[in-house]
Amino acid sequence: MAMAASRINQPLMAELARVEEQLALVGQEAGPLLQEAIRHHLSAGGKRMRPRIALLAGRLLGHEATDDLVRFAAVTELVHAASLVHDDTIDDAATRRGEPTVGATWGGHIAVLVGDYLFAQAAIITAGLGSLRLMSLLAATIQALVRGELRQMSAAYNIEASAANYEARISDKSASLFVLAAEGAGVLAAEGAGVLAGVGEEQTQALHQFGQLLGLAFQIADDVLDYTGSDQELGKPAGSDLANGVITLPALRYLQSLRPDALDWRIVEEGGEIDRVVAAIRASDGPECALDRARTLSHEAVSALRTFPLSPAREALELVAEETVRRRS
Amino acid sequence: MAMAASRINQPLMAELARVEEQLALVGQEAGPLLQEAIRHHLSAGGKRMRPRIALLAGRLLGHEATDDLVRFAAVTELVHAASLVHDDTIDDAATRRGEPTVGATWGGHIAVLVGDYLFAQAAIITAGLGSLRLMSLLAATIQALVRGELRQMSAAYNIEASAANYEARISDKSASLFVLAAEGAGVLAAEGAGVLAGVGEEQTQALHQFGQLLGLAFQIADDVLDYTGSDQELGKPAGSDLANGVITLPALRYLQSLRPDALDWRIVEEGGEIDRVVAAIRASDGPECALDRARTLSHEAVSALRTFPLSPAREALELVAEETVRRRS
Repeated sequence: MAMAASRINQPLMAELARVEEQLALVGQEAGPLLQEAIRHHLSAGGKRMRPRIALLAGRLLGHEATDDLVRFAAVTELVHAASLVHDDTIDDAATRRGEPTVGATWGGHIAVLVGDYLFAQAAIITAGLGSLRLMSLLAATIQALVRGELRQMSAAYNIEASAANYEARISDKSASLFVLAAEGAGVLAAEGAGVLAGVGEEQTQALHQFGQLLGLAFQIADDVLDYTGSDQELGKPAGSDLANGVITLPALRYLQSLRPDALDWRIVEEGGEIDRVVAAIRASDGPECALDRARTLSHEAVSALRTFPLSPAREALELVAEETVRRRS
Repeated sequence: MAMAASRINQPLMAELARVEEQLALVGQEAGPLLQEAIRHHLSAGGKRMRPRIALLAGRLLGHEATDDLVRFAAVTELVHAASLVHDDTIDDAATRRGEPTVGATWGGHIAVLVGDYLFAQAAIITAGLGSLRLMSLLAATIQALVRGELRQMSAAYNIEASAANYEARISDKSASLFVLAAEGAGVLAAEGAGVLAGVGEEQTQALHQFGQLLGLAFQIADDVLDYTGSDQELGKPAGSDLANGVITLPALRYLQSLRPDALDWRIVEEGGEIDRVVAAIRASDGPECALDRARTLSHEAVSALRTFPLSPAREALELVAEETVRRRS
């Protein structure tokens, strides 16, 4: 499988380079200050997961990486970046991927503007792609991102609320962007300028499913890493989710494994002794249990692709799904 | 003229009530906290100028206030509201229209989310109106608003920069929304679900011009009021623009009227003795000179409507333009 998928690696790298060119254009007319902040934010690492998925999904449908597909792939990264910069502002985060955040460097005021600018830029590029359905998908994605951040805020430091809304929260905050990338590539192929014959609702829905399941798996794996990774691997302090009151699946699984009488909810809810709780979760099988859930979702994502004939693009997407639950940073 | 226009007043009130119904739906699914903040922000006064213009422009084209036009009118208010709440956050403003801002009441974090939510809601409603061009116009408007805020920041406390970018800044920050309302109604009539015969590029461009000129006039009148109004009329301290380093046309006209050797730029640039400078500007003919410019622009806006046959809707729009440079709050 890896051999077939590697055949797609070289052209994918070339397409991702075109996505970078698109991203490098963003902010050129925003004036030197905003442009510098945008450059800093867009170039701070990142694996370009969402553009990668958009490009591979397009390829799966026989899309020859038209300029429109490359632009759309860039849009998925712009929305992701816009969401991150506002989230960092909301959370007062000091670092991201080991680099100071926009807010920490230029202040929260500029961070608000950078996010708005990137959202608007994503909307402008998408409007140029000629599909109202794609535009609706983008708008729904942005709304889901806001809803997800709100769910996270409303459940902060609250174990019961966190358990009740965990999957809805990561669906909104993370999976929505993977859905945009995968389903959006399908919508573009079916409705965009160079309409592809034979791309119909079944394909688009399969891509939607793939994006949704992969996105959930990705976020759970990310939440596990927050406990199992080192500070250096993460580019931020390990255990920082819990320190910020964000109670994720590894913590929830750990708490479920305790006998009810041993379960002291208040330790977390009162924000005390966080280091001790993080160490306990890290030493428990909570992270591994959570990772099992991610693996299941990743397998389901792969299954959602079965409606497509086997191809190097399908294998490459399958590899992405597998690596998602294996990655170390 | 006033008599003919009054014939349109009653149906317009009914249409504006439908816009309020649309606005009341916004945030229903956002959870109690965000919903309360949204309600507070959307119901805090305001003359619904932009929806009013959208509805009248639609009527000018023979649009019978379809549900789509009402929805679009609500969109113009949502974008305006989204922009205000982010601007207040960026400027750390404590009050707006005499009420505490969202940021002052719920914190800057919620204010960022409220703005994002309202932008996304505007995009979702617009995507449902079936015109890609309208969607592009919306995206361009949001980008202009961001650019305008940035121009304002970059020129803060700097007289030369403020003089150089004043009109571009208010074009981006204010006129863009009036263009959205007026031109957007034209685009909707030409491309939306119930396409109107005979609405072409000439009409749309005339509405664009009207929106642009009216928006500039509106903002200059607003900037004059910041000097001539009382705290009570303004719902915020008079002279607060200058106190925040925002140097507007009344101040620029005042400075131009001074002999070069009497012109102490540094008073403002160093932020000292603002009260004294505000009093000097207020006592000068700077505000009146600026208002003259607003009146000229308002007349030009009225002229832009001459391409349309005389009708109650046209007269009502002319009245709006006249009242814009006469209003006291």
